[in-house]
Amino acid sequence: MASDGATIRHATCEDVTTILGLIHELAAYENATSSVHATEETLSKTLSFASTSTNATTTFTTGYAKTYLITAPGGEVAGMALYFHNYSTWRGAPGIYLEDLFVKPKYRKRGYGKALIRQLAKETLEVGGARLEWSCLDWNTPSLEFYESLGAKQLKEWVGLRVDDEALRRLAEG
Amino acid sequence: MASDGATIRHATCEDVTTILGLIHELAAYENATSSVHATEETLSKTLSFASTSTNATTTFTTGYAKTYLITAPGGEVAGMALYFHNYSTWRGAPGIYLEDLFVKPKYRKRGYGKALIRQLAKETLEVGGARLEWSCLDWNTPSLEFYESLGAKQLKEWVGLRVDDEALRRLAEG
Repeated sequence: MASDGATIRHATCEDVTTILGLIHELAAYENATSSVHATEETLSKTLSFASTSTNATTTFTTGYAKTYLITAPGGEVAGMALYFHNYSTWRGAPGIYLEDLFVKPKYRKRGYGKALIRQLAKETLEVGGARLEWSCLDWNTPSLEFYESLGAKQLKEWVGLRVDDEALRRLAEG
Repeated sequence: MASDGATIRHATCEDVTTILGLIHELAAYENATSSVHATEETLSKTLSFASTSTNATTTFTTGYAKTYLITAPGGEVAGMALYFHNYSTWRGAPGIYLEDLFVKPKYRKRGYGKALIRQLAKETLEVGGARLEWSCLDWNTPSLEFYESLGAKQLKEWVGLRVDDEALRRLAEG
């Protein structure tokens, strides 16, 4: 719970429209609207949803990522954290990877982003994990400073690699 | 299958000793032996193993990552690719993240690494995924050139962030 009484819960399948709306808002914020190929149908098929919106005995549908939603005291969903489990070979343990964090502009400066990340830190420990990880654009200094204030270290020696689209098909076909 | 007849299969629970051996060999290669906290017990508890070593109607135990092993024509396991599913919000689709790729030095220059990555590219497409991703140390020029030859692009704008150990506990406790 954030300090103003906002609440965090896992998304259910009834939240797909809300999630897609947040994705589009995030994409607009990053000037990446044309990059969004997700639809309600693809999200419904690929995300893992909670069976209930309470935390008691939650079960999840099969999927590749889960979503936490934060609801402001007024009742509107103010933001989300979309994440999946990753794995550390050295640790022999799972971790959590935060794929996307978004808080609507009008709900910023309330600690909602921190509350969502803290929720993920708790869940990382709950699954016996040792690492909570995510990525940030290297020119986004305000975000990097915020993440540093949460105890995050930058993995500056590592560069990400990606094969996608036509290159992926070529590689698969060999 | 690599060009010399080496074969690739998913690891079963009987391969844990082999996997741990490969992890230790990889760590030694990276001068990171002291970083390995994985044991046979932690790997057994956290990896997802195939029920059979053939590809026909394979089912998997619950876990956070899977392992492909490549066996040389002589019968020895020559290397592995340890991976998990990730997720692209923009795509609304899963992908595959290659956490660790290792081929024993004496089996290098045979195309085994490429064969393992190609297997992951195939699996990415099979799960309806759009991206195969991994990371590499930025000073490892030979590896970066090899990955470029496979069609991988470098995500140079992004920096990884990690909260672990004591910082993770502090963040979770708020």
